[in-house]
Amino acid sequence: MALLDELQRPTLLVNTEIARKNIAFMAEKARQKGVRFRPHFKTHQSAAAGEWFREEGVTAITVSSVDMAVYFADHCWDDITIAFPINVRQLRTVNALAKRIRLGLLGESMESIQHLQGQLEAVVDVWIKIDSGSGRTGLAWDQPTEVARLAHFVNSSPITRLRGLLTHAGNTYSAASREEVCQRYQSSVTRMANLQSDLWAGGYGLLELSVGDTPGCTVCSDFGKVDEIRPGNFVFYDGQMLRLGVCSPQQVAAVLAVPVVALHPERSEVVVYGGAVHLSKDVIVENGRPHYGYIVRLEVNGEWSEPLPESRMARLSQEHGIIAMPADAISGLHVGDWLGVLPAHICLTVAAMGGYRTLDGSLIKTCTPAEPV
Amino acid sequence: MALLDELQRPTLLVNTEIARKNIAFMAEKARQKGVRFRPHFKTHQSAAAGEWFREEGVTAITVSSVDMAVYFADHCWDDITIAFPINVRQLRTVNALAKRIRLGLLGESMESIQHLQGQLEAVVDVWIKIDSGSGRTGLAWDQPTEVARLAHFVNSSPITRLRGLLTHAGNTYSAASREEVCQRYQSSVTRMANLQSDLWAGGYGLLELSVGDTPGCTVCSDFGKVDEIRPGNFVFYDGQMLRLGVCSPQQVAAVLAVPVVALHPERSEVVVYGGAVHLSKDVIVENGRPHYGYIVRLEVNGEWSEPLPESRMARLSQEHGIIAMPADAISGLHVGDWLGVLPAHICLTVAAMGGYRTLDGSLIKTCTPAEPV
Repeated sequence: MALLDELQRPTLLVNTEIARKNIAFMAEKARQKGVRFRPHFKTHQSAAAGEWFREEGVTAITVSSVDMAVYFADHCWDDITIAFPINVRQLRTVNALAKRIRLGLLGESMESIQHLQGQLEAVVDVWIKIDSGSGRTGLAWDQPTEVARLAHFVNSSPITRLRGLLTHAGNTYSAASREEVCQRYQSSVTRMANLQSDLWAGGYGLLELSVGDTPGCTVCSDFGKVDEIRPGNFVFYDGQMLRLGVCSPQQVAAVLAVPVVALHPERSEVVVYGGAVHLSKDVIVENGRPHYGYIVRLEVNGEWSEPLPESRMARLSQEHGIIAMPADAISGLHVGDWLGVLPAHICLTVAAMGGYRTLDGSLIKTCTPAEPV
Repeated sequence: MALLDELQRPTLLVNTEIARKNIAFMAEKARQKGVRFRPHFKTHQSAAAGEWFREEGVTAITVSSVDMAVYFADHCWDDITIAFPINVRQLRTVNALAKRIRLGLLGESMESIQHLQGQLEAVVDVWIKIDSGSGRTGLAWDQPTEVARLAHFVNSSPITRLRGLLTHAGNTYSAASREEVCQRYQSSVTRMANLQSDLWAGGYGLLELSVGDTPGCTVCSDFGKVDEIRPGNFVFYDGQMLRLGVCSPQQVAAVLAVPVVALHPERSEVVVYGGAVHLSKDVIVENGRPHYGYIVRLEVNGEWSEPLPESRMARLSQEHGIIAMPADAISGLHVGDWLGVLPAHICLTVAAMGGYRTLDGSLIKTCTPAEPV
């Protein structure tokens, strides 16, 4: 039976051929540039997809939570950075992890490091989290004295091993063009390299530089003085990356298949079963207006077309998706037909769906949601 | 050990005393107005919370998906309306359900009804879905001929039993005030009643009227000529309802507990572990600016304060929440402290979290996410 004929509900489909090409491309780029490739696994969130990276020679990974680190450690990954500020409420779990794998943590305050030094029983790598311009969290890139003070404090105990400086140049996501992505990436790397020099001059040794963001790592031809890249989203890419021109439609590896449940040609809208609980509610802003994803046609084997012209996921409620598309495109549709949505932000869609199907029909479950405790 | 001392990660807490009061209030209001109370279970999504309704005499419920109907049928609910356009891809499951419970479905097209009549083997109730002004889906309230035509078609087979007219006056959610909520509710009910009269005159009998939305059912003192109400959100309420003045802070029954991971008093921000994968990304628009929830102080037993002044969940990424709050309120905080977030849209937060804890520490799991197939 063809894949789509087996499906009944909103289903996230992954084209593994495309995903593996995306991985191979980034792994090769890292090799050519001589940087460590420590991909972020928060996008695919699955041990099965992790194996695709292993086959490309990846041995070190990034995750976004302690629980995700436990999950991947349980699947034989033994060099993991948790790229999220230390949650001191989970230090017991962190301790257990630190005893079994090489664990990297992010420090950005004396207070958090103090907790680590007081409670850990096994050595961890500490990366000082730098805010290189995105304004989310971390020590500010233009406060070298603060950074040196924290570096000094990390060094004050052998249990916290100062490894390097880490940033997420997340402001590349809001760039207006590929050129701006590169400018922001370069600006971020320059700021990191300056801090590295300052710390070198201060006697802290040559700290490693870790950066990570899919737009920068995909688009920029010069990685600058970084030692490690941590992109994640690129494994599947998504509507936001497409909008930014970071990837082509042929590189998008995941689509949410949704059944049509009502047709409203009189107002150029189609209602599908596929809402906020499936896609999450991140947006793509296009011509000043937000929408929730691009619409594609699905083949019965699960492959999909390029985005259909003037077709967008316009509104979402809990389970309803309202697609805006031209009336003439609607005229050929029936209830029960499948449409595809290239989600705005695939990481959130993966988390919401809890798993995906490959085009050969295999089910890949993710590590989320963790047990609700 | 106090509840908060046991928690390690973002956790959704439910004050059952408040939730039960909310249920008792709505059940009593329905009794007084002489309407059937068919609460929507898409908000709490749990068999355990369903029992709180059963204790208030509720015997008929509403759900938003076929899978949710199966889940509640498995927990001894035998009168269920699936308030979502028929997904013809799930008719096998619908058929099995129709054989074991009294099942209500929504019809809005000949095509969907044709699928039902062709494939069902047990009688179902059909409610004609009317768009009474919200513009999501359904037959337009001002097209009585279309409605009559569909009613006629539903009546053409004994397997589809025409039950009534159903609407979701979802435009009350975007009202600017309690007064406007009532105006929109009344306008919606008047439109439904007119359609009911038209169909009565056309010989279709006296069809029931079912309406449902938390703002209208909470605020309006006159329910008009409706037979059934289907509010859902009111069991917990949330930030959007608070903003609309539909409920008071004392009626909000659920809070997301989040640990502080970084402090940025210099820019009046606190970073917490609690992001889009926990809260989802629905917004409250206040003074023209969107945010993701109100911030409260948590007691160690899990109870919470009124919303803290000038404190909002300002930004969300996958796991990070960035709270904007006054620097003097931040000065007393430490990493590892708990803060609470009253989510913008609790239904999506419940779906994202997959469960919640009551203040006595019990874990209540929800039916979502269903197995990813």
